[in-house]
Amino acid sequence: MSKLVIVGTVAFDAIETPFGKTDKILGGAATYIGLSASNFNIDAAAVSIIGGDFPQEYLDLLTDKGVNIEGVEIVKEGKTFFWSGKYHNDMNTRDTLVTELNVLEHFNPVVPDNYKDAEIVMLGNLHPGVQQSVLNQMIKKPKLAILDTMNFWMDIALDDLLSVIKNVDVITINDEEARQLSGEYSLVVAARKIHKMGPKYVVIKKGEHGALLFHNDDMFYAPALPLEEVFDPTGAGDTFAGGFAGYLASTGDISFENMKNAVIYGSTLASFCVEKFGTERMIDLTDKEVYKRLQAFKNLTQFDIKLT
Amino acid sequence: MSKLVIVGTVAFDAIETPFGKTDKILGGAATYIGLSASNFNIDAAAVSIIGGDFPQEYLDLLTDKGVNIEGVEIVKEGKTFFWSGKYHNDMNTRDTLVTELNVLEHFNPVVPDNYKDAEIVMLGNLHPGVQQSVLNQMIKKPKLAILDTMNFWMDIALDDLLSVIKNVDVITINDEEARQLSGEYSLVVAARKIHKMGPKYVVIKKGEHGALLFHNDDMFYAPALPLEEVFDPTGAGDTFAGGFAGYLASTGDISFENMKNAVIYGSTLASFCVEKFGTERMIDLTDKEVYKRLQAFKNLTQFDIKLT
Repeated sequence: MSKLVIVGTVAFDAIETPFGKTDKILGGAATYIGLSASNFNIDAAAVSIIGGDFPQEYLDLLTDKGVNIEGVEIVKEGKTFFWSGKYHNDMNTRDTLVTELNVLEHFNPVVPDNYKDAEIVMLGNLHPGVQQSVLNQMIKKPKLAILDTMNFWMDIALDDLLSVIKNVDVITINDEEARQLSGEYSLVVAARKIHKMGPKYVVIKKGEHGALLFHNDDMFYAPALPLEEVFDPTGAGDTFAGGFAGYLASTGDISFENMKNAVIYGSTLASFCVEKFGTERMIDLTDKEVYKRLQAFKNLTQFDIKLT
Repeated sequence: MSKLVIVGTVAFDAIETPFGKTDKILGGAATYIGLSASNFNIDAAAVSIIGGDFPQEYLDLLTDKGVNIEGVEIVKEGKTFFWSGKYHNDMNTRDTLVTELNVLEHFNPVVPDNYKDAEIVMLGNLHPGVQQSVLNQMIKKPKLAILDTMNFWMDIALDDLLSVIKNVDVITINDEEARQLSGEYSLVVAARKIHKMGPKYVVIKKGEHGALLFHNDDMFYAPALPLEEVFDPTGAGDTFAGGFAGYLASTGDISFENMKNAVIYGSTLASFCVEKFGTERMIDLTDKEVYKRLQAFKNLTQFDIKLT
């Protein structure tokens, strides 16, 4: 069974959307990536850090889903990373209300020995230096290293970011971040420039407008499934990344053609994530529901123009 | 050969984009729709009105492309409709600088006798009363009536618009207009409401984010082809509509499955339109170029996840 190492936050989130608000609930990039990747037949491990205030039931939840948590350090006297945000009415923009780094401030990720030969490494959004230190611990070069990041690191740690970007195969960022990183408005030109920074594959996430995959002159586009309502977008990008990485790990095929399928799986899983608050929808997601939604994605995108 | 009646403006446009500006050039909804539809083996006729200032060479151009212009009234002492606009840097928004209705103010469209039994009627963006008067002239109910409109008519002639909308099979509008017409933010819910206003098919154009086709609970999504640069978006929506209508006329098949193909043809043709100023790119477009771009659309959207 292929191994997938996931590094990222395991956190508390408090979310407010036009549909309601939550107290501190389970959140964090590694959580969403792990829950999403757990839909595939792989051996996934989360590498993260939490405080003594983190409930055992949340850890059990990850374990029950088959996500190994050996690499999740518990700092007994510390507090878990906390993020709070409020979405605007259109759900496409949000204000961050609170960011308490807490234990994350001194996070030195340790990859468990048994996962140092993992085929796929998914570097969730974190300080680029932390992402690099995970790569450094791998005893053999992963088949595929995937990096997610955000504008915050472009603002305050661009050199570190450019340095780790050089060492990964795939980068996933959103459209505005792609524009910031490349200095180009056109996403086609932006992807080409980012390509030259290292990653052979560039995934640009456009939220409700879907996701684009670039590789040399090849492009692939997956829409987001049009939904009656988006209840809470938190974690959708990480869920996308988890589906993408999980599918590639489970198939062992990192060809561009198979990456198209991985993008569709990522989009499919993300379409569930936004239906309820936080991780709620991902927790009781069934294989049958995923299967039905993949069919919906096919109906949404496949057509039959014969070109001879 | 199937007949397609196209009603809309034949006009002068003056366009400014970040890439440059034009003097008065050939424009108008019926022009773009006609040029786009002329890529199919159909019998298309434009119904419009122009002034004595309109150059014969522009009329010859339409004729050469196989668009019948019997229904284009020439008001010798009048001036042709003129629109001038300036695009902002992101190309997604524009300011209208000049609108001179001129002969359009007293436009009573007359469908040539030979086209009163056309299978497909494409009502380009015009006063809804004018659109209705074209439908009234048809001696048999068209197989498919398609209507394009814009927010302007929702603001000043909503009752007339709702009245003609009842009588068409397909409506094509952009996302903001769909939201205005329905009062709903979610495009899925908006389409459902518009559906209840009459049209069995709702096409929502999202510019650089593609187009959605809705029919009952079925949805289809076609992306816009990601381009290195959009040179001039003028006419892209009409070119889309012309490709959609032209393909359906040429195949004679108005099933939902074939409408998916029509949306892809519309998107393919629109992707050319924006590459140069005004109608320039559409005029020397070859079948081979269209074929190659359809292949690009397939590569962009088609994937191979086996669902058994």
